[in-house]
Amino acid sequence: MAEQTAQGSYVEAGEFKRDTNYVPTRITRDGADGFTPEAGRYRLVVARACPWANRAVIVRRLLGLEDAISMGMCGPTHDARSWTFDLDPGGRDPVLGYERLQEAYLALDPDYPKGITVPALVDVTTGKLVTNDYPQMTLDLSTEWGDLHREGAPDLYPEALRDEIDEMAYRNFTEVNNGVYRCGFAGSQQAYDTAYDRLFTRLDHLEEHLSTRRYLVGDTVTEADVRLFTTLVRFDAVYHGHFKCNRQKLVEMPVLWAYTRDLFQTPGFGDTTDFVQIKQHYYLTHTDINPTRIVPKGPDVRGFLTPHGRDELGGRPFGDGTPPGPPTPDEVVPAENWVPTA
Amino acid sequence: MAEQTAQGSYVEAGEFKRDTNYVPTRITRDGADGFTPEAGRYRLVVARACPWANRAVIVRRLLGLEDAISMGMCGPTHDARSWTFDLDPGGRDPVLGYERLQEAYLALDPDYPKGITVPALVDVTTGKLVTNDYPQMTLDLSTEWGDLHREGAPDLYPEALRDEIDEMAYRNFTEVNNGVYRCGFAGSQQAYDTAYDRLFTRLDHLEEHLSTRRYLVGDTVTEADVRLFTTLVRFDAVYHGHFKCNRQKLVEMPVLWAYTRDLFQTPGFGDTTDFVQIKQHYYLTHTDINPTRIVPKGPDVRGFLTPHGRDELGGRPFGDGTPPGPPTPDEVVPAENWVPTA
Repeated sequence: MAEQTAQGSYVEAGEFKRDTNYVPTRITRDGADGFTPEAGRYRLVVARACPWANRAVIVRRLLGLEDAISMGMCGPTHDARSWTFDLDPGGRDPVLGYERLQEAYLALDPDYPKGITVPALVDVTTGKLVTNDYPQMTLDLSTEWGDLHREGAPDLYPEALRDEIDEMAYRNFTEVNNGVYRCGFAGSQQAYDTAYDRLFTRLDHLEEHLSTRRYLVGDTVTEADVRLFTTLVRFDAVYHGHFKCNRQKLVEMPVLWAYTRDLFQTPGFGDTTDFVQIKQHYYLTHTDINPTRIVPKGPDVRGFLTPHGRDELGGRPFGDGTPPGPPTPDEVVPAENWVPTA
Repeated sequence: MAEQTAQGSYVEAGEFKRDTNYVPTRITRDGADGFTPEAGRYRLVVARACPWANRAVIVRRLLGLEDAISMGMCGPTHDARSWTFDLDPGGRDPVLGYERLQEAYLALDPDYPKGITVPALVDVTTGKLVTNDYPQMTLDLSTEWGDLHREGAPDLYPEALRDEIDEMAYRNFTEVNNGVYRCGFAGSQQAYDTAYDRLFTRLDHLEEHLSTRRYLVGDTVTEADVRLFTTLVRFDAVYHGHFKCNRQKLVEMPVLWAYTRDLFQTPGFGDTTDFVQIKQHYYLTHTDINPTRIVPKGPDVRGFLTPHGRDELGGRPFGDGTPPGPPTPDEVVPAENWVPTA
């Protein structure tokens, strides 16, 4: 029988199927769905732990949209009613006033039938969810929010490369971003074995692909890199052990490991990564695969700050643009959560 | 409340306590406990999966006791009534005629109250368990069974080094051999954290200790090496992920990794190692920490056969003795279980 989970369902053969029915409302220049980009009108609700939300956090940083779009941060764990603002004083998001992200979903639709997911863009004037369609969300931040980008913002989705980025991102999604979940949430040995083989086949391909070029597509950071990064940076901390993606650790795949370190050390990437919240989320929330709820102390992640040597491949991370400045004080990941000493 | 398990119990603070009340009967030259070494009289019952049994399998091989003491092999998994001979034709041990090792324990004591463990030495003339006291068992194989050793058998417990071996083995037992279990079976986050710190503190010490000497004590293989090996060889396959001993993998600790490869490639060590059965045992049996019973495909263990360079430190694995010959055909670990390709 198919079993429903917060993130998807199991089909009978035991393969995990991600629920991809999101609220597809878009915020666009032409306001076709009733929403246009506007400074101060929307709040991006994320959790540091979540790889899908991490994409939006990175893109917002790279594009310098922090002043235009405020950010609410849920804690790393959630219960059956999903993400809560338990890190905020009084347990309420200071802008929306909500205790649970669910409230924004129910404000939109009191009978909202699907999972409460991050990232979510919420209209602060109504308190209603606008969209949780994360793949479209980051693309729209690049293409529809240009008037509000910072000076020197990079082009993460250059028109000439969009087909290539889309293709790369699609394959990485099916095999890697979602592939690790298919390993971890496999309902049968056979489904796991298949997911594992697909994952490492793709990682082997990427190891080769990135051996001669610094970034996935073109010679600058693009949306494709953002999307791969948020899975790779979590690989050894959670996917290797908790999801049994254990042919090797990332640190044993030299090209991908150097590629990930390069991005980690690029402003906007590593400074959005919270290893403590990442581990807490996976190990405390998935009681079906970690019933003891014990959170591992490892791995030692100090290696993320070691030299990567990828500059030799050329490329310019921000193209004709510039790096973003440091995170605002209220959005700094505490040093001990970022690269804690083991 | 303290909860009983096959291998021990949890105390209230959540720390795993190994049950160390074994049947302490000894087989000695003087027959003090009623049993003397005798070719063909005893059967060593093991499981390839079990690190404590693996010690006895290695020592028996190194000393050339295969003809004197036959070996029965249980399958990798067991249920509440413990180890079974499910790998044998008809599901029965061909010498003892038992389906379950439990039968040998109940033949000794119909009300046997403790765990049914391997290794076990069984008197084939009565079908009764003689001893399951694994630390004493391997020492007695060295010191009491000398008349039946092969020509060229090494001295694994040299008299002049016994205090040093005992001390080394004791510290390695509390911090490493049993330390990984204390991590994996911790009943609280605090108990886990403490066990993890103790484990890696000791591994750091051993990494240093072995950087200038080839073996733990003296300059030949001793009982101390046998005991450490059976934990290290399982480290990446089961303890790293399943037991959350994940500061690093063994392959990330260069000295210990080379030391383990050296021993692995020494006749009598690697040829007793069955990675498939090891993984099946831990991941299928401990449903309290792996309820899905999915067995990881990784890690890639082909590295065990790569050069180790430890010869440069000097030392002679077998001292004045010689290496054992190859395993007998019925005791060969299938190549695909030994160093399977990933």
